[in-house]
Amino acid sequence: MTVSDLTERELIARIQQTLQPAPPWLTVGIGDDGAVVEPDRNRLEVFTVDAIVEGVHFDPRLTPADAIGHRALAVNLSDLAAMGATPRLCLLSFALPPALPCDDFDALTRGIAALAALHRIHVVGGNLTKSPGPLVVDVTAVGAVKRRGVLTRAGARPGDEVYLTGTIGAGSAGLQALRTQPSGAGDDYAECIRRYRYPEPRVRTGVLLGRNRAATACIDLSDGAADAARRIAEASGVGMILQAEALPIDPSTRSWFEARGADPVTESLRGGDDYELMFTVRPRNRGRLRAVIDHAGVAIARVGVCTPGGGVRLQRTIGGVVEETLPPGFGHFR
Amino acid sequence: MTVSDLTERELIARIQQTLQPAPPWLTVGIGDDGAVVEPDRNRLEVFTVDAIVEGVHFDPRLTPADAIGHRALAVNLSDLAAMGATPRLCLLSFALPPALPCDDFDALTRGIAALAALHRIHVVGGNLTKSPGPLVVDVTAVGAVKRRGVLTRAGARPGDEVYLTGTIGAGSAGLQALRTQPSGAGDDYAECIRRYRYPEPRVRTGVLLGRNRAATACIDLSDGAADAARRIAEASGVGMILQAEALPIDPSTRSWFEARGADPVTESLRGGDDYELMFTVRPRNRGRLRAVIDHAGVAIARVGVCTPGGGVRLQRTIGGVVEETLPPGFGHFR
Repeated sequence: MTVSDLTERELIARIQQTLQPAPPWLTVGIGDDGAVVEPDRNRLEVFTVDAIVEGVHFDPRLTPADAIGHRALAVNLSDLAAMGATPRLCLLSFALPPALPCDDFDALTRGIAALAALHRIHVVGGNLTKSPGPLVVDVTAVGAVKRRGVLTRAGARPGDEVYLTGTIGAGSAGLQALRTQPSGAGDDYAECIRRYRYPEPRVRTGVLLGRNRAATACIDLSDGAADAARRIAEASGVGMILQAEALPIDPSTRSWFEARGADPVTESLRGGDDYELMFTVRPRNRGRLRAVIDHAGVAIARVGVCTPGGGVRLQRTIGGVVEETLPPGFGHFR
Repeated sequence: MTVSDLTERELIARIQQTLQPAPPWLTVGIGDDGAVVEPDRNRLEVFTVDAIVEGVHFDPRLTPADAIGHRALAVNLSDLAAMGATPRLCLLSFALPPALPCDDFDALTRGIAALAALHRIHVVGGNLTKSPGPLVVDVTAVGAVKRRGVLTRAGARPGDEVYLTGTIGAGSAGLQALRTQPSGAGDDYAECIRRYRYPEPRVRTGVLLGRNRAATACIDLSDGAADAARRIAEASGVGMILQAEALPIDPSTRSWFEARGADPVTESLRGGDDYELMFTVRPRNRGRLRAVIDHAGVAIARVGVCTPGGGVRLQRTIGGVVEETLPPGFGHFR
């Protein structure tokens, strides 16, 4: 059975079955011309939208349908996290190829619903359309943040230290591993593959960083760490020096790239499938950062410093000589 | 030159050039991980999302690119109007085939920007992605409404009178006319074609109906008037009798269908490209409705009445005999 065997109403009913009960602030939910919502008192709202497209952002042969759903919501949660916002509500818009099996449709929505439940973001509405083209999963997410807790890319100053959550490069290694061994099972890189398929948006860390004003700038790594560094530098009007030795690259990621003759540092900086956060902290606010680290539930590594001069450089000791360079960002048009 | 010759950043810059200056409530606009917005004080928010897909909702040979943009926003404005909400902000998400000419991209965004300026809805963010498939234009729109001014489909009671804004069937006739004469120029049905390409969402009427509590239920006609009637009836738990003679069908629409041996009433009730509103009014609130009619700037016709029994019927006098029937809705999966 494919989605073309069902009416829009039947498909919506299948989505609704996966959702949590409506929160009290949802005055009118799915089923009218729009959803009616009571805003969060004394909070600003953060809006973000991101689409993932079959054949561009995922290959359905390598990504189970529930992972497609997970990733579609995760990219948006990651954007909210980078702004310091607590996830609140989202809207889903799917363009569905008629041949999409109902089982995949169900798994897709299950992947979204599971991550939504985890982060208490409520699906308040959406749109389903058929399409002669690839599957497109478009998610609009809305979060809430106190005025003082808003994080942007623009607040870094020279002397601020640069940090990364989690590790980088694993998503990229995971995707390469899947392409090499599509079965993906039982190999040494299961963790990289899991990171690629089910990235964990750093929602808690982003909210904590904003709430206690530890960070001066923040961005998520959707286009890679090198790109993120350049964007903070540009938006804040600073330069940045990253230390290659300090970059958090886990052993299996390192070993994946090394075994293929690639440089783990370069690959991990370029890799576009990490949904970690990069942020900057004034040295005198290290105490605040400490409090965040205690509650974030994820490792946080200091990887560099902001400088007065423009440009982002990577400092790296090769054969006892300090070299400076930076690989390009994950620059495809997306 | 096509969109694949430009970077995402360049394309975003082209969109930004078409937009109005940022309103004071927009704390962080396009260019960060999310847009930061100050909610409207003492208002509820209405959220809606709708996508239009090349080959499903429009044929690019029949619909100029600026009309595609116009329609993509109009369907969302129409949803906000049906809820009684004043448009406030929107987010755009485009899946772009690489071969899309830049001129079409510019016209598409111009079509959105022009309608956005007219209704004072601000584009606060968006997402661009390439796609191997058809053009997909996904718009999420947010409006503001006082708690007392929210309109839903669910408030109609037996005895309430049923009204329609504007006229019905013109969009459907316009699309047929375009398909017959793709050049579209200089024919008798230019007005129908204009209605198909550039529908006018009834934003002002919807807001007025909610604000002075004239309407008990409201819906927009995105899937046709017959479908709209059924949805109000179902959501409100009432029946409905529509009067064929009272339906607002303009002469060129009527003549288009009659010239082709089709029944204008049936076709106009089924047609899915009208963005009018259907709403219900308690007879004792006719005075309030009068006030709305005075300021709505669009004709409003009484077309029927709600009944205690379920089901929607069409009453029609054919050869002196009253018949009752109702054509099916615009029921394609979309």
